[in-house]
Amino acid sequence: MAVGLYPPDQFPCIEGIRLSAVSAGIYKRTRPDLALIELAEGSNCSAVFTKNSFAAAPVQIAKDHIAKSNTRYCLVNAGNANAGTGLSGMDGGRSTCNELARLSHCTTENVLPFSTGVIGEPFPTETICRALPELYANLQADAWLDAARAIMTTDTVPKAVSKTVVIDNIEIKINGIAKGAGMIRPDMATMLAFIATDARVDKGVLDRLLTVSAGKSFNRVCVDGDTSTNDACVLIATGKAFNNEVNSINTGSYETLSNAISDVCSELAQSIVRDGEGATKFITIDVEGGKTADECLAVGYAVATSPLVKTAFFASDPNWGRILAAVGRSGIENLSIEGVCLYLNGVKIVEGGGRCITYTEEAGLEAMKNNEITVRIVLDRGDFSETLWTCDLSQEYVRINAEYRS
Amino acid sequence: MAVGLYPPDQFPCIEGIRLSAVSAGIYKRTRPDLALIELAEGSNCSAVFTKNSFAAAPVQIAKDHIAKSNTRYCLVNAGNANAGTGLSGMDGGRSTCNELARLSHCTTENVLPFSTGVIGEPFPTETICRALPELYANLQADAWLDAARAIMTTDTVPKAVSKTVVIDNIEIKINGIAKGAGMIRPDMATMLAFIATDARVDKGVLDRLLTVSAGKSFNRVCVDGDTSTNDACVLIATGKAFNNEVNSINTGSYETLSNAISDVCSELAQSIVRDGEGATKFITIDVEGGKTADECLAVGYAVATSPLVKTAFFASDPNWGRILAAVGRSGIENLSIEGVCLYLNGVKIVEGGGRCITYTEEAGLEAMKNNEITVRIVLDRGDFSETLWTCDLSQEYVRINAEYRS
Repeated sequence: MAVGLYPPDQFPCIEGIRLSAVSAGIYKRTRPDLALIELAEGSNCSAVFTKNSFAAAPVQIAKDHIAKSNTRYCLVNAGNANAGTGLSGMDGGRSTCNELARLSHCTTENVLPFSTGVIGEPFPTETICRALPELYANLQADAWLDAARAIMTTDTVPKAVSKTVVIDNIEIKINGIAKGAGMIRPDMATMLAFIATDARVDKGVLDRLLTVSAGKSFNRVCVDGDTSTNDACVLIATGKAFNNEVNSINTGSYETLSNAISDVCSELAQSIVRDGEGATKFITIDVEGGKTADECLAVGYAVATSPLVKTAFFASDPNWGRILAAVGRSGIENLSIEGVCLYLNGVKIVEGGGRCITYTEEAGLEAMKNNEITVRIVLDRGDFSETLWTCDLSQEYVRINAEYRS
Repeated sequence: MAVGLYPPDQFPCIEGIRLSAVSAGIYKRTRPDLALIELAEGSNCSAVFTKNSFAAAPVQIAKDHIAKSNTRYCLVNAGNANAGTGLSGMDGGRSTCNELARLSHCTTENVLPFSTGVIGEPFPTETICRALPELYANLQADAWLDAARAIMTTDTVPKAVSKTVVIDNIEIKINGIAKGAGMIRPDMATMLAFIATDARVDKGVLDRLLTVSAGKSFNRVCVDGDTSTNDACVLIATGKAFNNEVNSINTGSYETLSNAISDVCSELAQSIVRDGEGATKFITIDVEGGKTADECLAVGYAVATSPLVKTAFFASDPNWGRILAAVGRSGIENLSIEGVCLYLNGVKIVEGGGRCITYTEEAGLEAMKNNEITVRIVLDRGDFSETLWTCDLSQEYVRINAEYRS
């Protein structure tokens, strides 16, 4: 059902990164469900995590480990979120890190754990530990797509994006993989995303690169409005390229790298929406003319999370009144409805609080037929604008989530 | 599909109120779609309206009229919301008030207009005006259920509740009718509700009665999280009973009347949820132990509007991790997950941030099988508590709203 999203046939390597994936048996059926990412010694690593108060055990452990030590391994399982699992979940998560540290001759703090899947099930610590020797032995540079497949849950397509840029006349590579299709309304990071570059980047600059890039990409997508307990986004710089270290945000090389990483993050974030559970349409929401960025986002998310707007998109029904109603309940103070304009794929629909005189139902139906639709909302109150991405709400979404555990 | 909701066979009258309903032809098919409520001279009337910035034309007109004059008539149409209709919608709404005022020999300001239906369609002023003579001629005291039926849109059951209380040894009657099944997350009032009593009540006290009653009833229900452009709730006191006027909130008669009106409002509000679009389950959410009422509501609404929680209820799946995830993203500062307990119909599921040791999946499945379920969330942070009501999210909700205009 993914909207305009196709898995890449092949995928380049990043010097300093090796990956691996195995079927550990976390799922009842045989499918890859455990992935490992190895960072060469000397790599820098930044991460942002969910703001959900019920942060999963792996999120709590990973936050602790990355604060204490350099990261050498990201260990990721699908099929079990290790969330709502209390102390035994914390113990289980730490045990898998311990076991991998033992195998790879590093310390427990060099390992970051990540989990995605059902919340509240006991964490299958033994199952994962049993699979670690094979997982570790299989590490190789060209296994990006294998890892992307192993971290999928309800995703129908593995999500992987690669870009190159030139810094100091050196070709720099950026690879990213991500997963996520439901419980998607990231707050500081997406479900799970791993981005790596071979560029030499200072650790503080890398943190900033991640915050900026995630802010405009993963934090701007929404499938169902539910913020996950397990969201995490990791940015790795292996430093294997021979560029001068990017050590300040006031340089041309920072800007070049930042734009490229933002592009990778945006494409990954959008691919999560394109593969949103039950999605049949990919919807871009542009909000312009706000007094602040926050009020643009409030309007955008009110529209993006409205079940009525989303079912209208599913039906290809230009029922624009539902969009207006969502704008109206978004909590903007003193919003003058006379100033609001609304466009669907360039067709002007609303002007002055009512139907635009040039609008015809036929033009609206024509715009809604597309499977990629841009909703443009002009508030006429200021100079701020924001863009976010969402999908429609279909009966398939309900079926997928009603049957998720069965 | 309504959950445990049956229309009353018969319904008492309120002295001082007459009602009427006709098929005006606003819908393509023949069905009652226009209702009139007449208030005897000397009645007091209070109203609260939606806080949606895109308030419909009738909301704007009714607010203006009730501020200027005593209310004698509530004119209500289904099938067209007269919202997003700009100046022509305002003109159309006023024209229908004018025409009714001419027929009934009152002033335009004595008429409050109400509309519910599709947003953004031109308002059928002529169609409504043509039906007004028959509507006016048909007014009678025992037409409460006819009026309740005429204001339905996607409702499957007319909603009407009646209660009696004794004040000053006088039997006081309270009747209420309401409509609403989708776009339900009222903010100060529900889709449309009209409550009348024959009690003698001071206007200021009546305003207070309405605010208090609506606050704990219509403002505590949620079907899909979409706040309507047309929400309105009207409370009428005809004063035809011979009680001493209720003219202070510090009296026993105020308390008696307030409790009874709150009961009527709660039952009407809950009936809207029971008849929620596609609903198969009626869910009560109790949040206890909050530091403030607002944080209890934030938690309650995060759970009540989560598509993942709602689809789990539809599937009768005790996927309680989704409830925890919703609590976790509700924005409560410094929420200690160790303090949170969760119960489903009395079965303790979560304790100390993880699965309660006494919990079994069988007990959870048993609780979820019911079509009326209470979710109890204990925060252990303070003494505040709040209750709200919602329903599940089924494929039928998507079908209804995808096909709404077709």
